[in-house]
Amino acid sequence: MDDRPIGVFDSGIGGLSCVAPLKKLLPGEKILFFGDTARVPYGSKSDATIISYSLQIADYLAGQGAKALVIACNTISAVAIGAIRGAYPDIPVVGIVEPAARRTAELLRGGKKAGLIATRATVNNGAYRKAVKAVLPGAELPAMACPLFVPIVEEGLADSDIARLTASHYLDVFVRDNGLDTLVLGCTHYPFLADTLRSVFPELDLVDPAECLAEEAARVLDEKDLLAELGANADKPDVFYASAISGAFTETVDAVTGGADYDILQHHF
Amino acid sequence: MDDRPIGVFDSGIGGLSCVAPLKKLLPGEKILFFGDTARVPYGSKSDATIISYSLQIADYLAGQGAKALVIACNTISAVAIGAIRGAYPDIPVVGIVEPAARRTAELLRGGKKAGLIATRATVNNGAYRKAVKAVLPGAELPAMACPLFVPIVEEGLADSDIARLTASHYLDVFVRDNGLDTLVLGCTHYPFLADTLRSVFPELDLVDPAECLAEEAARVLDEKDLLAELGANADKPDVFYASAISGAFTETVDAVTGGADYDILQHHF
Repeated sequence: MDDRPIGVFDSGIGGLSCVAPLKKLLPGEKILFFGDTARVPYGSKSDATIISYSLQIADYLAGQGAKALVIACNTISAVAIGAIRGAYPDIPVVGIVEPAARRTAELLRGGKKAGLIATRATVNNGAYRKAVKAVLPGAELPAMACPLFVPIVEEGLADSDIARLTASHYLDVFVRDNGLDTLVLGCTHYPFLADTLRSVFPELDLVDPAECLAEEAARVLDEKDLLAELGANADKPDVFYASAISGAFTETVDAVTGGADYDILQHHF
Repeated sequence: MDDRPIGVFDSGIGGLSCVAPLKKLLPGEKILFFGDTARVPYGSKSDATIISYSLQIADYLAGQGAKALVIACNTISAVAIGAIRGAYPDIPVVGIVEPAARRTAELLRGGKKAGLIATRATVNNGAYRKAVKAVLPGAELPAMACPLFVPIVEEGLADSDIARLTASHYLDVFVRDNGLDTLVLGCTHYPFLADTLRSVFPELDLVDPAECLAEEAARVLDEKDLLAELGANADKPDVFYASAISGAFTETVDAVTGGADYDILQHHF
């Protein structure tokens, strides 16, 4: 038993889509969320920059007493999880890529033809493909970078002709040439585009890695006997830090917390 | 006469579009350019964040011996020029908004109906409108934020159906309801969309503030007797700093320097 909070972080607001699945599976935990909204997007930055920024955030959350670090960002998981684990050998670090890759490998083993869509950094890094091959050697996972999807979501244009045209631009040839029946949404912003993707590609199944992340976090905390006592955190509000608080951040926090108490704080690196 | 370099800076690579007009009007000057590519875009960040980042860059360029600071970024000019002038009272600070607003006021005085397109930060700040009214009290300058234009340019999609649909999305109603005949391109990325804007709105004239900025920089340096002796900098390459060097940065530097010698260096804050 350990009543200290879980640190959850992302390059911006996308990772907030992982908060609801985490709260559902881990109702006794207090969450410290950090969104690096001042420096988002990470997906087009260099690996060295992503690692440096991620270690600043991990350091901050560890300094606030986080008992575990949950990386609610595909780019950070793909690029920086090794560096974060190296810096915090005594804290469990759960990334979103590994559990989502295991789920993808299960689908491939069952005969599905899956493709990955993600930011440029996640695609170039190849972490999803490597993680799938670690479970299922010889597996194929074609991948396509869709860098306009994040700003489209942040602009509130997820359900628009621009979003549909952009989806066709990135994915028509990719889906057809690879004969895909499943898309893995390898960026925490992309679930907001799920309806648009279903309308353009009604024949495709979508995989949302946020569910896989929450299951993995619950498994790891249980295994290491780090779960909080139920009720011990009942009067402690979750805390949402942003490096630059914006209207979009506060609105999204309000939407994902569903009426529970929370604090919003700004921390500038 | 003063042979020290001019500091020119931007939130990213857009400001590189101001380098060619500056070199054309000021052929004797050595340029130190800084693009904050690790933290781009500024346009959706808070004023406090933009001011803090801008002062870091100004401090760095002043520390490298810059005799003047030229802000090749509408967002920084609109939000942070007062803070930068306050921090460096002995260095001339030239922004892009003030000279572009004077040119806009001339057009309005001549009977043109102009509108401003820019990032959300520049539009919300109202600096263009204030600068136009300072010259032409009672002038109207309707303004529209077009936040997807920067990522579209950075994605290499300036000439695409997505760009044309996005231009229509932001501007159809704006142009019609305000009866516009002129658009002021209030973001240094937007000149890369000029052909697309002309194809969607063939009846509109476009104003590129980079030309106004170069004229103002030349005037201020001359007035303060800070021009370099012609030839004194002939063997000194221009220097282009980025907070995160990327392929897009080096390619754009190469395109705007047109064969002249230059160095590229990374500086991380």
